[in-house]
Amino acid sequence: MAFTFQVNSDIKFIHDEKLLAKAESFRPVIHKTAVKPLRLVELVKDDTKLNGVGVKDSEREISRLSEYGLKRDDRIIIDFGRHIVGKFSVNITKTGSPQDAPLYIRLKFAEMPTELQAESSDYEGWLSRSWIQEEFIHLDELPAKLELKRRYSFRYVEIKVVDTSPKWQAVFTNPEAVSESSADYSRLKKPVIDDEILSRIYDAGITTLAECMQDVFEDGPKRDRRLWLGDLRLQALANYAAFGNIDLVKRCLYLFAGMTKEDGKISANVFTRPENIPDDTFLYEYSLFFISTLYDLNNAHKDTELVRELYPVCKKQMDLTLKMFDADGRLITDDNYPVFVDWSNDFSKDAAGQAETIYVLKQFISLAEIAGDSDIDTYREKLGLMTKYAREKLYDSSRKLFVAGNCEYNIASQVWMILAHVMSDDENREILRTMIRELFPVKDIATPYMYHCIAEAFFEGGLKEEAVKLVKDYWGKMLSLGADTFWEAFDPDKPDYSPYGSPIVNSYCHAWSCTPVYLISKYL
Amino acid sequence: MAFTFQVNSDIKFIHDEKLLAKAESFRPVIHKTAVKPLRLVELVKDDTKLNGVGVKDSEREISRLSEYGLKRDDRIIIDFGRHIVGKFSVNITKTGSPQDAPLYIRLKFAEMPTELQAESSDYEGWLSRSWIQEEFIHLDELPAKLELKRRYSFRYVEIKVVDTSPKWQAVFTNPEAVSESSADYSRLKKPVIDDEILSRIYDAGITTLAECMQDVFEDGPKRDRRLWLGDLRLQALANYAAFGNIDLVKRCLYLFAGMTKEDGKISANVFTRPENIPDDTFLYEYSLFFISTLYDLNNAHKDTELVRELYPVCKKQMDLTLKMFDADGRLITDDNYPVFVDWSNDFSKDAAGQAETIYVLKQFISLAEIAGDSDIDTYREKLGLMTKYAREKLYDSSRKLFVAGNCEYNIASQVWMILAHVMSDDENREILRTMIRELFPVKDIATPYMYHCIAEAFFEGGLKEEAVKLVKDYWGKMLSLGADTFWEAFDPDKPDYSPYGSPIVNSYCHAWSCTPVYLISKYL
Repeated sequence: MAFTFQVNSDIKFIHDEKLLAKAESFRPVIHKTAVKPLRLVELVKDDTKLNGVGVKDSEREISRLSEYGLKRDDRIIIDFGRHIVGKFSVNITKTGSPQDAPLYIRLKFAEMPTELQAESSDYEGWLSRSWIQEEFIHLDELPAKLELKRRYSFRYVEIKVVDTSPKWQAVFTNPEAVSESSADYSRLKKPVIDDEILSRIYDAGITTLAECMQDVFEDGPKRDRRLWLGDLRLQALANYAAFGNIDLVKRCLYLFAGMTKEDGKISANVFTRPENIPDDTFLYEYSLFFISTLYDLNNAHKDTELVRELYPVCKKQMDLTLKMFDADGRLITDDNYPVFVDWSNDFSKDAAGQAETIYVLKQFISLAEIAGDSDIDTYREKLGLMTKYAREKLYDSSRKLFVAGNCEYNIASQVWMILAHVMSDDENREILRTMIRELFPVKDIATPYMYHCIAEAFFEGGLKEEAVKLVKDYWGKMLSLGADTFWEAFDPDKPDYSPYGSPIVNSYCHAWSCTPVYLISKYL
Repeated sequence: MAFTFQVNSDIKFIHDEKLLAKAESFRPVIHKTAVKPLRLVELVKDDTKLNGVGVKDSEREISRLSEYGLKRDDRIIIDFGRHIVGKFSVNITKTGSPQDAPLYIRLKFAEMPTELQAESSDYEGWLSRSWIQEEFIHLDELPAKLELKRRYSFRYVEIKVVDTSPKWQAVFTNPEAVSESSADYSRLKKPVIDDEILSRIYDAGITTLAECMQDVFEDGPKRDRRLWLGDLRLQALANYAAFGNIDLVKRCLYLFAGMTKEDGKISANVFTRPENIPDDTFLYEYSLFFISTLYDLNNAHKDTELVRELYPVCKKQMDLTLKMFDADGRLITDDNYPVFVDWSNDFSKDAAGQAETIYVLKQFISLAEIAGDSDIDTYREKLGLMTKYAREKLYDSSRKLFVAGNCEYNIASQVWMILAHVMSDDENREILRTMIRELFPVKDIATPYMYHCIAEAFFEGGLKEEAVKLVKDYWGKMLSLGADTFWEAFDPDKPDYSPYGSPIVNSYCHAWSCTPVYLISKYL
């Protein structure tokens, strides 16, 4: 994976206060739930778990926590038994002589046991060290209730006593978490799923989705914690199938619509704290996916008024995009406005980008019909042109595969051409079978985001069995490695792969991996 | 140095609420003063300074602080230009792209530059790591005002950016300290001191004293931060000569008197936070110094009522002490109630302990006279007996030195025998001259506490010139090594000596080193 930070801090943004006020009006209620710990655990070597790290019951019992005096370098690991996004508190007192020194403790919050084994001092990755969920705290006076103000994403909390003094030991009691989410589980209707593995995948997908549903749809509650358009599109689809929280999607659409570049282009992501701020990062199809997200919303919950209100924003994105096509209907990519498709930069993305545009333009034309846009025929022409280019110039009818960039046949191009329904259903099936034969097994793809596209392409292309197999193999393997929620990055061939060189900053609950909820609901 | 922690957590203490209410009534006002930074500095190798670490002006200017964007691993060192006991705050914002990650910073607070060079991760000393003045802070949202709630003891504050993100840099503005002390400088009357070095020593002694004057007389505002009786005695003497804060001494006496062991014995130190708590550490002469401190208070500010009120507590200490003497008037020491004299345990302390008792017993008899104790003759007899033992059994008239323990001639024994005026003035001078000839230069004494005793013995024994030389050599050398305040520990032969193996937990503003204030005022 190669990730390039975009730094465009001189860009001017328009803040449309009317749209942002609407975003504010849809701000969700955050449901808070107290969670008690399940048990105390210890790390164990376990080759069946992620990075070979599992847990076992500690000899210490959570019910007897108040009996344990902890001295320098002693530690406990609290297992809450479920993934939590929220706050942590614990009462701390001491046993022995008077407190003749501060108590100094380190707390580590971990979604997966492997994070607890990593030492922050060893981390030298390019991603900010500030994401490591670790705190060092002095307590000058005991007893005290330690209530950490920051929000963490965790199942496990390790408390290490850095030091007391030789005269007394620290005692921890009543550790408690308060989970936060705007997902309303009372509205969740799980479908009947006979297959046990699929059922477990569905459940973990629901948890992943719910944990990312906060003030906005966050991409990951541990890290990034912001609203990305590419993630939003998938979260929204899963959400319609699960919690049906329409307002939260509207809030997110208004946030993107309310903060565009001066030329109308939508950012790839926005921040909502300490105030609404658009990021200066732009990704080709992320801007376009504003259209998809509005289209999907209207499909899930018809809202003609909303479509008409936000249609001008959609049209702006499409018009900016169409300028990047030549007279033959071919996408001319621009490194300053990169086509994402997937994290990996080791494959040509032009064909996939062409397909994504066709996919979105079809949705856009539907919206244009609702909005009654008199320019609609122009868009239909453009669609025809870029589809023709794809069929005639990008499709290699001899190999039954689409070709990208420098005579390259990659999975992403086939998948997006299928999703865009550029070819007939029969041809699509043929392409997919060729892809399986010639380009499988999948290699060097490490994101559930791309795996989702492949799985959906199988479903859309009528290869249901292959789709189910892929979902079970990929998401099921995360479960067998110990996942409670699905991950930001996972390469089944290299389970220990981290885009950052250390699991300590990996996000093990990441929105774009929740899509089995949508796939199972829609296709099974 | 060998330090043994006493752990006696099963001891029962009496809390005399009436006396503790009086202690409360004398709780001082803490004066708070805002302090602006003087400059930004960098560490430099400087063999003339402590541990070879000095500072020089940074190329960055404090007046332009808001112009500097700090990225991963960048750091600034703020020099406040004076020693401060108090709180620190700084405004933090950022420059560049939106804040796409928390800011993670490390703050180090240092009294001396050498502390900034030490890495906390290297510290393996026996003293608690929790005393290291270092904080790791995450800031999820900028701009923010960081107001640290803990109190630190420092002149320098180093802020290191552990990480931002590649997209933005942290900007620090308006760093500010608020100093805290119960010393009232408007009441300070500095005597005219012609000698420039002595004048500077006096000034640093005043600062040291003032910085330790908080809610009680603390032993060190960086570390320990509590009321020790041995330190109190010296602080009170310096305080009478400087700030004349009688109430604060009274408060401390009531605290010790109000919390004794069931048998009446006074702890070596007490805590006042989160509530009044006596420590379970007992030192032979520290208990006795309650008597000295009351005696000195009454000398400085006649208070017959207070003497009568606290006399029973004094009498209890003396009676417990006298039980440790045999029929010949010889102190039989007890390892569970050790004679302190000095940190070092590498010399015999019995003779010094005998002398300390004689020193205090004389003061006690003065108090007994004021209190009108009918048992006074018994105490006079005991004084006679233990003085006789000292003169006849401990004084080696052939060598003109007192002998301790196992035929050992050490400085501490001579010094305390002089302070106790066991021999005549002429004999005392002879003993001191012998001590200089045979036992000097001082070796392996690393505390200003013991150096104070030697200097005072010179003054009391009439060797004023030698006393001044010792003060100038010892305290003056700390100044030349860069001291703003005087230190807990200093061995002129080994300036880099730390009782803890690292300067990072050394206290460089320590009450028992403030005594030049008292010595200069009383004797010069």
